[in-house]
Amino acid sequence: MTRVFNFSAGPSTLPEEVLHLAAEEMMDHRGSGMSVMEMSHRSKMFTDILEATERRLRDLMSIPSHYRVLFLQGGAFTQFAMVPLNLFRKSHRAGFLHTGSWSKKAIAEARKYGETQILASSEDTGFTTLPPCEPSRVDPDLDYVHITTNNTIFGTCYDPKLAPPPRFEAIPLVADMSSNILAQRYRVEDFGLIYAGAQKNAGMAGMTIVIIREDLIGHAGPKVPAMLDYQTHAKANSCHNTPPCYAIYIAGLVFDWVLRQGGIEAMEARNRHKAALLYDFLDGSDLFRATVAPPARSLMNIPFLLPGDDLDQAFLAEAESQGLVNLKGHRSVGGMRASLYNAMPMAGVEKLVEVMADFERRHG
Amino acid sequence: MTRVFNFSAGPSTLPEEVLHLAAEEMMDHRGSGMSVMEMSHRSKMFTDILEATERRLRDLMSIPSHYRVLFLQGGAFTQFAMVPLNLFRKSHRAGFLHTGSWSKKAIAEARKYGETQILASSEDTGFTTLPPCEPSRVDPDLDYVHITTNNTIFGTCYDPKLAPPPRFEAIPLVADMSSNILAQRYRVEDFGLIYAGAQKNAGMAGMTIVIIREDLIGHAGPKVPAMLDYQTHAKANSCHNTPPCYAIYIAGLVFDWVLRQGGIEAMEARNRHKAALLYDFLDGSDLFRATVAPPARSLMNIPFLLPGDDLDQAFLAEAESQGLVNLKGHRSVGGMRASLYNAMPMAGVEKLVEVMADFERRHG
Repeated sequence: MTRVFNFSAGPSTLPEEVLHLAAEEMMDHRGSGMSVMEMSHRSKMFTDILEATERRLRDLMSIPSHYRVLFLQGGAFTQFAMVPLNLFRKSHRAGFLHTGSWSKKAIAEARKYGETQILASSEDTGFTTLPPCEPSRVDPDLDYVHITTNNTIFGTCYDPKLAPPPRFEAIPLVADMSSNILAQRYRVEDFGLIYAGAQKNAGMAGMTIVIIREDLIGHAGPKVPAMLDYQTHAKANSCHNTPPCYAIYIAGLVFDWVLRQGGIEAMEARNRHKAALLYDFLDGSDLFRATVAPPARSLMNIPFLLPGDDLDQAFLAEAESQGLVNLKGHRSVGGMRASLYNAMPMAGVEKLVEVMADFERRHG
Repeated sequence: MTRVFNFSAGPSTLPEEVLHLAAEEMMDHRGSGMSVMEMSHRSKMFTDILEATERRLRDLMSIPSHYRVLFLQGGAFTQFAMVPLNLFRKSHRAGFLHTGSWSKKAIAEARKYGETQILASSEDTGFTTLPPCEPSRVDPDLDYVHITTNNTIFGTCYDPKLAPPPRFEAIPLVADMSSNILAQRYRVEDFGLIYAGAQKNAGMAGMTIVIIREDLIGHAGPKVPAMLDYQTHAKANSCHNTPPCYAIYIAGLVFDWVLRQGGIEAMEARNRHKAALLYDFLDGSDLFRATVAPPARSLMNIPFLLPGDDLDQAFLAEAESQGLVNLKGHRSVGGMRASLYNAMPMAGVEKLVEVMADFERRHG
C-alpha cells in the first residue's frame, strides 16, 4: 500500500488514523457483531454514535446551547433552497455577498422564493478579492444575509483574523462554511445559521452539517417538503427518516481526531503554517504565481498559475509521478489548485513546494 | 470477531464479502493510493465506480434504455415530495394504494401540491391485507398512481407472482420499492418511476435509487428546488453536486455480489425458501403466529406475535443471547419482526426457527 498526497478540493484527503479505524471496525463495531452500516438508526448503539458525534462538534466549535446541530443530506446545494424556504419569514428579502460560483448558486435558488439583493460583489475582479460591504447601509428588514466564508474555487476567504465577515446587528448571518469548517475559528454566535457539506474537513460526502439558532426554526410554510423544513429534523434529532449513518460515524471519528490534535486552534495554527509555506514560495517565484492577494487568501484552497498550458500539463504530470495528485485547477480559474484541508499533512505541502522549486529550476 | 444474525428492518445486514472488500480497500482503493471516500467525484476513478454501479443495476433489473437511473440523497421521504413536485404535470391529481405507514406519509406530502385520491385502503384490517383495486374504475386523468410494493412495518407485499400490483394502462405507476428492490423480479416497464432507499437490499443509508422513464423528466415547475428536480440530476448523471460517493461504491459492491449469486431470480428463489421456512413454522405453531395471511405476505419482513408482552420479552432476550438481534417488532404492530433481506443467510433463518421451536417446547 502506497498512499498519495491528495490535493483534491473535495471529496478530499482524510486522516489515515480515521481510515484505519473504520477499516478495523468494519466487520464488527466494538463487539456489536456488525458494521455501523448495518445498525438500525433507532438502536442504542447508533444513538450513542450520533450523540458522541454531536457532542464532539459542539466541543470543537463551542456551539451555544440555543443552537441546534443537525446532520442532514443533500449537500450545500440543498441548503441553497432550504435556507430561503425556512428563513424568508417577514420581508422575504435577503442580502448576498457575491464572491463566486457558490454564492451565485445560492442566489439563484433564493430568487425562487423572494427578493435577493447583492450587497457586495467581487465579480469585477474575477472573484480574486473580497468585496467591501458597509453593514450600516444595508436594508435592516432583510430576513437574512448570506456569505460564503471560504471560496473553494477562487481561493478567497473571510479569514476571521485578517478579513473577518461583516456583522449586521439584528439580521441573521447565514454562512456556507463547506470548505473551511473546523479549519479556522469563527464565533458561532456571530451567525444565525452555518451549513457545511462534510466532504472537505468533516469526513465523507453524503452528510451536511447544519448549526441553526433555535429562533430560526419553525418558519417554513405549509407547502415546504417536510424534508426541507429544519423543524422536521430538529424535532427528531436528525432521525426523522434514516440519516446517513455511516457518514455520521466517519464525521464523529474525524471530530475526535481534530480534538486529539488540539482542536480548531491547533488545526488553524497548522493550516496557517502550511498555507504560508506555499504562499511564500509562490510570492518568491518567478515562474509560478498565486491568483489571490492578501488579505483575501484562503488557507484551504490555493489556486496558482504557470505561464501557459504546456507548462501546466508538464507540471501536473511531474507532480503526479511524485505522488502529488488532484492538483489540476478548476476550469473557471485554470492552472493548478492545491487544497490543504485539515487532514493534509505538512509533509504533503513540503513535498509540493520541493517539486515546484525543482520544476522552476528546470523551466524558469 | 463474532458476527451476529441481524434481523433489523433497515439499515440492515450486508453481505460479509462486501464488508471485507470495503475494509480491504479502505486505505488504498486498487492502487489509487486513496480511499473511495477521498476521491474527487469528478475523477476518472470515481466516474468508473459510478458507471459500473449503474451498469450492474441495469443488468440486474433489466432496465430498458428509455429509463434513467439516478443515485440521489434524502431517502424515500424526499421522494414522497419529489414525486408530486415532478409528476403533477396535467391534472394535478394522483391516486394512492394505501397500505400502511409509508403510503400515509407519501399521501401527506403529495397533498401539499395537488389532489390525492385513495384508490384502495387496507386500513380497516390494520394493514394486514392488500386492498382490492379495480383499475378500470380509476380516474383516467390521474397524473400517477403510487404504490408501496413491500410494507416494511406491516409485512405485506405486492408479490409479483402471487399478488401482482394492479396495472393502470396509460397512468404511470410509481413504486416505493425501498424494502424489496433486488429481492423479487418486477418488470421495470410496468412502472413509470421506481424509487428505493439503499439501506435494505442495496447497501448503506444515504443513497436513494431512482429509476425513471425519460418522458417523466422535465416537468418540475419553476419554484421547485433544483435538487428536487429529476432533470437536474438526469442532466448531470447524478453529479450535479457531490453525490454520496461512498454509498454508491458500497451499492456497486452489493450489486456485484447479487450478480455473482445468480441475479434477482436466484435471490428470489432463496428469499422464498427462507421466508417459507419461517412462515411454515409460524403456521404450524401453537404459540407463535404470523400477523399476515397469504397471499399478501412479504418475503422480506415477517411480523409475528406471542400471546403476551412477558413472552415477547423472554423470547427477545433468549434470541439475543443466541446472537439473533433486532427482532423486536415495530411499535405499531408489537411482538417480533424478522427482516430477511437478500444478505440474510439461510443459516440465520434456520437458527431463528430452531430458537423459536425450543422456546415453544418450554413455554407452549
